[in-house]
Amino acid sequence: MLNKRTLIIYTGNGKGKTTAAIGSAVRMAGHNGRVLMMQFVKCEKNTGEFKYLKGGGDIDLITCGCGFIFKDKNLDKHKKAAKKGMQILLEKLEDTFYNLVILDEIFYIVNYKLIGSGELLNILHKFDKVDFILTGRDAPAEFVKLADIVTEMKEVKHPYKNGIPAKKGIEY
Amino acid sequence: MLNKRTLIIYTGNGKGKTTAAIGSAVRMAGHNGRVLMMQFVKCEKNTGEFKYLKGGGDIDLITCGCGFIFKDKNLDKHKKAAKKGMQILLEKLEDTFYNLVILDEIFYIVNYKLIGSGELLNILHKFDKVDFILTGRDAPAEFVKLADIVTEMKEVKHPYKNGIPAKKGIEY
Repeated sequence: MLNKRTLIIYTGNGKGKTTAAIGSAVRMAGHNGRVLMMQFVKCEKNTGEFKYLKGGGDIDLITCGCGFIFKDKNLDKHKKAAKKGMQILLEKLEDTFYNLVILDEIFYIVNYKLIGSGELLNILHKFDKVDFILTGRDAPAEFVKLADIVTEMKEVKHPYKNGIPAKKGIEY
Repeated sequence: MLNKRTLIIYTGNGKGKTTAAIGSAVRMAGHNGRVLMMQFVKCEKNTGEFKYLKGGGDIDLITCGCGFIFKDKNLDKHKKAAKKGMQILLEKLEDTFYNLVILDEIFYIVNYKLIGSGELLNILHKFDKVDFILTGRDAPAEFVKLADIVTEMKEVKHPYKNGIPAKKGIEY
């Protein structure tokens, strides 16, 4: 198992999943590892992580979503964005050796059936020398089974509950 | 509450607390916020976060621990390191306006009684315009009560349980 790649899942309803993924990107890049981070729901490029990490050389950060899905009845544009994201992911993985690939909010798009879970499992099996971090609520059982490390970020307290809007530098 | 600072706690026994704190530092710095991150247990400077963030300008990263405490019977050197850390923290807070201050593994040293929880509470009350992130297992109730956002990083699966050593770029 020592020479095996590590597959990490950050799931649960609490704050910290994407944030931990950003931290992991930094950690790996600090050791000169090559990192690909794909954000599957976000489309904005005005996030703190985007502004900061774009300056660094060893982290490829790509946003390939078009906003939160639950607000829309028509899923077509989200499906299209997800499919395009998966295509970019495959091309990147075939082109470049990454030490760490982060698929942020990937369970969101799997659970909305914008991509099939089999499609994602195939990629994880095919690129089995690459460390992966998968994030999103409600990680499906087949991914939890495959993973080496699974942390549930459990919400104990959160101001959203009291109608407080997201804060710059903290939430994005 | 909108103009109030945000106090965040990452606690629990799972992986992701320090990693999320690193991610938060990046996010805040990306928006040109000034960040102080103090690591209270770690002493090593060969971590990925140290190597990566030391390059950036807006994040002050200071390690002020001397390794894991549970390995030692004599707590003197740890107590000394913790006290020195608190002194540096106070000086920094009085000198500079930080948008975000991260006290990594601070609950570890509070729970080992290397510093009093009252001392830390006083700092949080005194510098009440500064966002704080506190990390560590077993967050004491008085801090959870004061916090705006609390996430419990709950271990679902972790290879340490099977005797697998920490992996560079993933665990540090």
